[in-house]
Amino acid sequence: MSISAGTTLSLLRERKPLVHQITNYVVMNETANATLALGALPVMAHALVLNIGTLSPHWVEAMLMAGKAANLHGVPVVFDPVGAGATRYRTDTARRILEQVKVSVLRGNQGEVATLVGVDAEVRGVESIGACSERAEIARAAARKLDLVTSVTGPVDQVSDGERVLAVANGHELLAFVTGTGCMSSAITGCFLAAKRDAPLEAAAEALASFGVAAEDAACGAAGPGSFHVALYDALAGLDPDTLDSRTRIS
Amino acid sequence: MSISAGTTLSLLRERKPLVHQITNYVVMNETANATLALGALPVMAHALVLNIGTLSPHWVEAMLMAGKAANLHGVPVVFDPVGAGATRYRTDTARRILEQVKVSVLRGNQGEVATLVGVDAEVRGVESIGACSERAEIARAAARKLDLVTSVTGPVDQVSDGERVLAVANGHELLAFVTGTGCMSSAITGCFLAAKRDAPLEAAAEALASFGVAAEDAACGAAGPGSFHVALYDALAGLDPDTLDSRTRIS
Amino acid sequence: MSISAGTTLSLLRERKPLVHQITNYVVMNETANATLALGALPVMAHALVLNIGTLSPHWVEAMLMAGKAANLHGVPVVFDPVGAGATRYRTDTARRILEQVKVSVLRGNQGEVATLVGVDAEVRGVESIGACSERAEIARAAARKLDLVTSVTGPVDQVSDGERVLAVANGHELLAFVTGTGCMSSAITGCFLAAKRDAPLEAAAEALASFGVAAEDAACGAAGPGSFHVALYDALAGLDPDTLDSRTRIS
Repeated sequence: MSISAGTTLSLLRERKPLVHQITNYVVMNETANATLALGALPVMAHALVLNIGTLSPHWVEAMLMAGKAANLHGVPVVFDPVGAGATRYRTDTARRILEQVKVSVLRGNQGEVATLVGVDAEVRGVESIGACSERAEIARAAARKLDLVTSVTGPVDQVSDGERVLAVANGHELLAFVTGTGCMSSAITGCFLAAKRDAPLEAAAEALASFGVAAEDAACGAAGPGSFHVALYDALAGLDPDTLDSRTRIS
Repeated sequence: MSISAGTTLSLLRERKPLVHQITNYVVMNETANATLALGALPVMAHALVLNIGTLSPHWVEAMLMAGKAANLHGVPVVFDPVGAGATRYRTDTARRILEQVKVSVLRGNQGEVATLVGVDAEVRGVESIGACSERAEIARAAARKLDLVTSVTGPVDQVSDGERVLAVANGHELLAFVTGTGCMSSAITGCFLAAKRDAPLEAAAEALASFGVAAEDAACGAAGPGSFHVALYDALAGLDPDTLDSRTRIS
Repeated sequence: MSISAGTTLSLLRERKPLVHQITNYVVMNETANATLALGALPVMAHALVLNIGTLSPHWVEAMLMAGKAANLHGVPVVFDPVGAGATRYRTDTARRILEQVKVSVLRGNQGEVATLVGVDAEVRGVESIGACSERAEIARAAARKLDLVTSVTGPVDQVSDGERVLAVANGHELLAFVTGTGCMSSAITGCFLAAKRDAPLEAAAEALASFGVAAEDAACGAAGPGSFHVALYDALAGLDPDTLDSRTRIS
């Protein structure tokens, strides 16, 4: 399937897909606003986004139930394994969700995804950094092992279905200074997947490229992480389907 | 009682009423900031705001207890039945609160309020839209059936005590692109009710009109939902009691 | 030990300490963003920040466990007794944490700290105000009684180790119109303590002075509490170690 973030964004704005999100306390306001700004609605259920940023047994059960229900009804699922590798409980929970729920797209940083494929990685806070080619390899390995599309985000994002690897070079370093931008990218992956459910690889790459373009726009004129954060919602809402494809850097 | 949002706002800023809010994870920061920006303080207890945006059995018990205590002490209660109609648990919980707590003002969107009076309505995410006259009828029906003041918000808000219906034409479409603005309007209803407790119909309409005027101010110069969201707090804090009544459109 | 907020800020940015934060639902996004903006990372564990803004038995247990583990490993602990004095449960919980965990810095407003040393104080919402000399006395009394460093924040902050009292005159009145700024100051105290763990009195004062300078910068050009809130993160990120000491007003 061809890649056109602009076409998918148009579809998404026309259909206003409902994206069910079970996310974490810290960033739920951010993910809901990013979803609204982009043009989708943050509830049930053209896609399901699971995020384990804040974990408790009840929430895990709720995520498993929602995931299984989504599988039953053919609703695509995005999974964000926040903090996998940082604690045993997080790693185990992420594995449990991946075992019991058929996930379409796994979206994490290098440390989180590496942990899930059994590769050791330095996990430093909720951020982790590594070389570009390493991220590509981890994305491909996770996609193969777990039989899904994997997005490993970082300075250049790497998206793989186990065969192909797409590199997404959009984005801005200020994203690392705002809490919840990783979670937002998962939410936006859910939005794009809802609009293009038969092509999760392309949808995942388009989502990250679009989010990256918005970040580039937001960084213009931002005086720091606070004004960048605000401008990010403006930029998501202002993304123009007609010019978007000329700005995405997917290779 | 006469309507003057400016006079009530002056009173509110002078008295700095404490507004107890049991609200939801997603928007609690927004409702607290909106309350602070307006000039009241977001805790105990010149008014009580109950919001079921994020539900769990413990929270429901806490809301029932707080509601009953408020009733006992003559503290006016605002209830925001977030998502009533979207799931059975939400609808049942909203009904349970309305049965066990004497609510002064019910503030919801058309779908939520329609559900509570037994009218079917399309509930799409947490937003729902319908015709203006329909909202007025639903507000009146809910006010009669539940014996309270009902605010049904939308492009034009409709506030009724079962007899009279006040239409509030202030506001801006960008409100729909920011999470928590409905909840903020409930919080602000609590602030106004604290300052004008003997006239809940007027207080509710003044609250929505004031919030709408602030939204109009915030929209000037906003580049999208992010900067609009920020400017909304500035505008709430900047509301001028002396000129406010000339700008409210209550009929 | 000498006081130099600039030197400590340089150290902090160089080392990017991990600051474990168990904080409350309402402000967790704010405290995480303030920590990121300043240049530290908001997770485990060069310092631990405990905040009882939103309480439940499980969270209290988690805080006690984290506090004891931090003590065992020599990780300095900051405690923010949000709402102590407002309810019996909050006061008791704050006392329980102070009994079971060796806290390095207690950071609260006058009413909260006064409650913990057995002095009655008017607690109005989560804000409380009093005279400057009174705050200094309460800070000193708490520091002696509880054998730790106490920061009592207000128009002029007072920081004491039981012997000396440092007054910090930086800050801006708009801080009182944004939810979570007290909690942010606790988070930032954790960041500075991580960079200067052997001098908690100085670290606490430097943290409040730096936060105050950022607030002064943020207030320039802010149109109200919304834009001030945003500019606060920009200003924290923009703090310049080279000029910071010429702007702090610690005496």
